[in-house]
Amino acid sequence: MAEATEEVSQRHAIAEPVLIRGTGLLGTSIGLGLRAAGVEVLLSDPSPSALAVAADIGAGAVCDPAQAQPGTVVIAAPPDVTGQTVVDSLQHYPHAVVLDIASVKVAIADQVHQAVQTGEIAGQDATRYIGTHPMAGREKSGPVAARGQLFTAAPWVVCARPDTAATALAVAEDLARVLGATVYRLDPVDHDRAVALVSHMPQITASLLASRLQNIPSQALELAGNGLRDTVRIAGSDPRLWVQILAANSTEILPHLYGMKADLDRLISTLEDPTALGARLDVAQLIDEGNRGQARIPGKHGNPAQSFAVITVLVDDSPGQILAALQDVAEVGTNVEDLRMDHSAGYQVGMLEISVLPGQKDLLVQELTSRGWKVL
Amino acid sequence: MAEATEEVSQRHAIAEPVLIRGTGLLGTSIGLGLRAAGVEVLLSDPSPSALAVAADIGAGAVCDPAQAQPGTVVIAAPPDVTGQTVVDSLQHYPHAVVLDIASVKVAIADQVHQAVQTGEIAGQDATRYIGTHPMAGREKSGPVAARGQLFTAAPWVVCARPDTAATALAVAEDLARVLGATVYRLDPVDHDRAVALVSHMPQITASLLASRLQNIPSQALELAGNGLRDTVRIAGSDPRLWVQILAANSTEILPHLYGMKADLDRLISTLEDPTALGARLDVAQLIDEGNRGQARIPGKHGNPAQSFAVITVLVDDSPGQILAALQDVAEVGTNVEDLRMDHSAGYQVGMLEISVLPGQKDLLVQELTSRGWKVL
Repeated sequence: MAEATEEVSQRHAIAEPVLIRGTGLLGTSIGLGLRAAGVEVLLSDPSPSALAVAADIGAGAVCDPAQAQPGTVVIAAPPDVTGQTVVDSLQHYPHAVVLDIASVKVAIADQVHQAVQTGEIAGQDATRYIGTHPMAGREKSGPVAARGQLFTAAPWVVCARPDTAATALAVAEDLARVLGATVYRLDPVDHDRAVALVSHMPQITASLLASRLQNIPSQALELAGNGLRDTVRIAGSDPRLWVQILAANSTEILPHLYGMKADLDRLISTLEDPTALGARLDVAQLIDEGNRGQARIPGKHGNPAQSFAVITVLVDDSPGQILAALQDVAEVGTNVEDLRMDHSAGYQVGMLEISVLPGQKDLLVQELTSRGWKVL
Repeated sequence: MAEATEEVSQRHAIAEPVLIRGTGLLGTSIGLGLRAAGVEVLLSDPSPSALAVAADIGAGAVCDPAQAQPGTVVIAAPPDVTGQTVVDSLQHYPHAVVLDIASVKVAIADQVHQAVQTGEIAGQDATRYIGTHPMAGREKSGPVAARGQLFTAAPWVVCARPDTAATALAVAEDLARVLGATVYRLDPVDHDRAVALVSHMPQITASLLASRLQNIPSQALELAGNGLRDTVRIAGSDPRLWVQILAANSTEILPHLYGMKADLDRLISTLEDPTALGARLDVAQLIDEGNRGQARIPGKHGNPAQSFAVITVLVDDSPGQILAALQDVAEVGTNVEDLRMDHSAGYQVGMLEISVLPGQKDLLVQELTSRGWKVL
């Protein structure tokens, strides 16, 4: 990995210095990653404390935006102010490529287009702008949580439009690659349509479900297993950020909300009278439609989903037990394709779920059992 | 673990032989577990082939239910026919403790009560019945997928009522313990109320979301990360089973569906006009309520949620890389509390997420980095 990154960093199209406007989690992480690749980075942020932290941890040099002469400007501001900051940057840095990293793309592109229409910026300015979206994040926010390798192996969508300058596209793609991300090219409309389903609807759904847990007895929550935990995991997200994302992509989200509402209404009316003719067929159809949708998600490395066999090994909580189990797996010569621990409340034991190629499963189960492991 | 189980099996209240009526995944797994503990097991099932498989893999002996004289009857039938099979068993085996393992409890207890009211069975018969619910399962169904250790460390809810015979309670709890499960005592109403939220609502929510994925372009699904994957994971469940569960627990599920519908309506109307007064506050509140609900779920072993620090180590896909990373973790002296692999489509690299006690995090990051690992 390290060698590959350094090799890329020696020949990239990124025009330096790179000015990063916004030193939250993502902006600061971009700064750290670019600095590690030897790229010159300038930083600005309306919050002097966030800016100072980002500079202190090595994400770049604090600059006065009015004096800077960047070759590339990266807008890493909240979604609500990204559009205006793009327009402002196109105006103030007439030779720079300007890119943003907000999670919605059409609304921002529209704002740039409108600035051309109103004469706020010149038509050729818009060609220097390119929208992008690195699909990475952490459960924490702010510059302190930043990591230069945050984008490693993450998808980074680059949204060129027919009139986007080739240099802008090259800068955006190289910036993503230098940071270790995988570049996907999508039209802004296709991007917003895709993230409505793969990112925004999961967030909404998880929040709707988690919200129901607010007032139930703790006793009931003790029975919670991985089913509930996984379904609400992303419900812990930042309301301030998400209100901006959902508002900016409402056009693409609403049709799915209408569809979900129709299904929910159908389910409610069938459960209100489960003995009615066709009621049970309706419920079964809903679950079946979920089966079909879920089966479409690609698995690891884009392989078809569920192409691995899963074996579960019981391990206790003493140090080294997981390691000992995996050592035995390695001795058998089986590669671990995926790995997960599962726990049960109130019980000092864990289930180590190991995914392997299906043809290797039987031998592995036999060998682990003969070595004294409990394989479920 | 093995010693403890054997010790328990030497002194348990289970009246033998145990007749298991229904040799699907759960019935067969109970048979295998009881046989491993030296308990005599008889099997019956309306499907001769399912019955033959269960007997062949050692879950017990095939029997003619009309001739059997069981001390304990375990009803492991589909939820729809469990109530009638309980009543039938109380009638035909006048000295046996009868328990069922269906995932809903009030509807079945009501059916037993009604059989007493109509004189189908005597009042004292009902005291020999006890409802239970082992909260374990697999993604596969049928006797072939059965495992004697399926219930290890899983919650097993035992629902005694004021008139339940003490022997029935003792048999049910010992049966759960012999199979390695953790016993929880709950009233049938409290049970159904709890599973409506921790099990049935997650299933419904995952299906509602997954259903939306049926018709989107595959290109969009390539951007799917763990957020989407986790939120829809359980959507792959069996429609035939779930239609019975949801219909039987509709009373407890409906209030949550009404609540979800109200929230969904609120979200739709705010997103239809995100610039309206108060619209954004409404969306932020919805996400915030999800935050609060999600934070209430207990973490590993019933500890408060999110009490561990998570570090992410980059590993490539070559055999032994995960093992090598965990060996270095062990050398540093850090215990791994939780473990998970995260993959990115189209990239031959994985992120190993390791949960550790917060106080151990900084040293571990430092040590792993100094050993050449990329820690995100």
